[in-house]
Amino acid sequence: MEVEQVFHMNKGAGETSYAKNSKVQSKIISITKTVTEEAIIELLCKNLPESMGIADLGCSSGPNTITVISEIIDIIYSKCSNLGCPTPELRICLNDLYSNDFNDVFGSLPAFYNKLKEEKGTDFGQCFITGVPGSFYGRLFPRKSMHFVHSSSSLHWLSQVPPGLDSKASTAINEERIYISRTSPQSVLDSYMLQFQKDFSLFLKSRSDEIVPGGCMVLSFTGRKSMDPTAIESCHQWELLAQALMNMVSEGLIPEEKVDTFNAPYYGPCADELELEVQKEGSFIMDRLEAFEIDWDGGVDMHNTISGTLSSGQRVAKTIRAVIESMLESHFGRDIMDDLFQRHADLVDKHLAKTRTKYTNLVIHLVRKG
Amino acid sequence: MEVEQVFHMNKGAGETSYAKNSKVQSKIISITKTVTEEAIIELLCKNLPESMGIADLGCSSGPNTITVISEIIDIIYSKCSNLGCPTPELRICLNDLYSNDFNDVFGSLPAFYNKLKEEKGTDFGQCFITGVPGSFYGRLFPRKSMHFVHSSSSLHWLSQVPPGLDSKASTAINEERIYISRTSPQSVLDSYMLQFQKDFSLFLKSRSDEIVPGGCMVLSFTGRKSMDPTAIESCHQWELLAQALMNMVSEGLIPEEKVDTFNAPYYGPCADELELEVQKEGSFIMDRLEAFEIDWDGGVDMHNTISGTLSSGQRVAKTIRAVIESMLESHFGRDIMDDLFQRHADLVDKHLAKTRTKYTNLVIHLVRKG
Repeated sequence: MEVEQVFHMNKGAGETSYAKNSKVQSKIISITKTVTEEAIIELLCKNLPESMGIADLGCSSGPNTITVISEIIDIIYSKCSNLGCPTPELRICLNDLYSNDFNDVFGSLPAFYNKLKEEKGTDFGQCFITGVPGSFYGRLFPRKSMHFVHSSSSLHWLSQVPPGLDSKASTAINEERIYISRTSPQSVLDSYMLQFQKDFSLFLKSRSDEIVPGGCMVLSFTGRKSMDPTAIESCHQWELLAQALMNMVSEGLIPEEKVDTFNAPYYGPCADELELEVQKEGSFIMDRLEAFEIDWDGGVDMHNTISGTLSSGQRVAKTIRAVIESMLESHFGRDIMDDLFQRHADLVDKHLAKTRTKYTNLVIHLVRKG
Repeated sequence: MEVEQVFHMNKGAGETSYAKNSKVQSKIISITKTVTEEAIIELLCKNLPESMGIADLGCSSGPNTITVISEIIDIIYSKCSNLGCPTPELRICLNDLYSNDFNDVFGSLPAFYNKLKEEKGTDFGQCFITGVPGSFYGRLFPRKSMHFVHSSSSLHWLSQVPPGLDSKASTAINEERIYISRTSPQSVLDSYMLQFQKDFSLFLKSRSDEIVPGGCMVLSFTGRKSMDPTAIESCHQWELLAQALMNMVSEGLIPEEKVDTFNAPYYGPCADELELEVQKEGSFIMDRLEAFEIDWDGGVDMHNTISGTLSSGQRVAKTIRAVIESMLESHFGRDIMDDLFQRHADLVDKHLAKTRTKYTNLVIHLVRKG
């Protein structure tokens, strides 16, 4: 599967859109805000550039896109005010895959610029927001043009399904139908780990060309605390989705080979794997690594009257659907999506009634060596 | 009317889309290619930068967007090959208003990058294509970041309807219903000329901040040869459209005040007006100014079997509809569009049977002073 071509968050503002179902990702952004803040302040205290390159990789669309850049601008503005210095010219690059809904993002910019002008006044320097489509597993920006690179809830997506698994990888063991599991043969685990290493080192290499010495990155993504890649914390969501798919196979709604040939281009790494790749690539110092847990449904939002009437399972299923539907749809077809995610929601409800499993998220702060 | 919010070429790839009805603009790009080529070669011979900033302002969507950047890249690649120098890192910025169909543009980039790799091989340097949404009547890019700025078929659009005309400007003279005409009072002509001067000088000022010394612009747009702004060459299209609208008023299909309150945010300048603004702003030298004529329908394309069955009037109406429908729709509503452009097509056919009026296009080459 060519991830670049088919993978995007659900577009628009409808019931199944990412814009309406990205609360978990929003919560992650808010939890990692302190790390972002400290990283930017450290950066500005070392050296206040005249023109500052900022990127959000995997910016997606909907409210989270604007939240991220808005917070980054606030941090810079407030620090510069404290220092009594003029705000640098800000070059803000919003990156995501070619199929991302950039029209939605750009449509929200006039209101954003107006708000910026109102809140920060004319003292505030120029701020140029651009869309940079392409895979972050490769070069995106000119040499030494970036000072601060941010990415949230994106780097757990691989550039592709590990080679060899992308056509036929059935092992007739239900639990590992679409991702690795405790019963995966070592060869499957190795393929996934290798793909992660290849992707993450290419990511680091690309960014090392683009980030100025002393510049930095704050990256957060789903990972795991355990050394074991088949640990339940990182696999359980996929197993529940595989169960939903296999239920549909057993009812004759999907051919079994369709499930056999679907593999998620996903990998949730642990701290050791990250540290190893950062060391091997050699351009960055890992200044900070933190892990935190987050509820599958991001917690109940009492202000949201719609989500208030949904079960946890339904909320979880909607969140996941908004992210991976494009990928599933291109493989299984559009028709089964409602049914699939209803089954998935029921399975998540049953599971959460027994155990309150959570996602493990990692956030790292990497500084480009001088 | 806030032009920024409502004005975009017709999206998608349907029958009335800009992608399918932009042959006139494509022809203009091809006619001005020599000017672009000579400007870039002159630029590269003076100084070959390591990293080269390139912008296409009013890039729109559809095939023309890719044609423009493809031609620019070809010119640079071929000149660098001749000089035996490596191609600079290319930073290509595609600009249009926030509501432009950037999703369409970005969707065509993977194929474009693949073609580039195939044709130019790995010798070719990095090429970064980004989307820069916003009005070119204002700053778009960082200071001194651009080397070559291109714009085709865009600068005849004003930033807004001249103030005072945007609410109620009826004079009960049919011919000047939606644009200036021979019967326009001097105050209306003055408003339009003033708005052009304001916009064009802001355009020059903004670009002068962004373009490096020695950098240049090639701009082409609809203008006029005559000093008289009410000359038939620049007004006749609008008069035919106004006639179509007034026919619908007379049949009770549109309230007359709707037509009275619509004014086109358009101005086709003459050489003298351009030269005056360039001199007043002072940052650029006008190295070249050429005028050429182009058929209203861009000439019949024998390869296009669909357009082959259409009358000239229908082709002209489709071309104009693809550009200004968003603007008319937001004022008159969607329902009357098919009827309006059918009437418009008939009027154009009748007119062309009598006189083969053409558009006057101007192309200018401006060099940023050192």
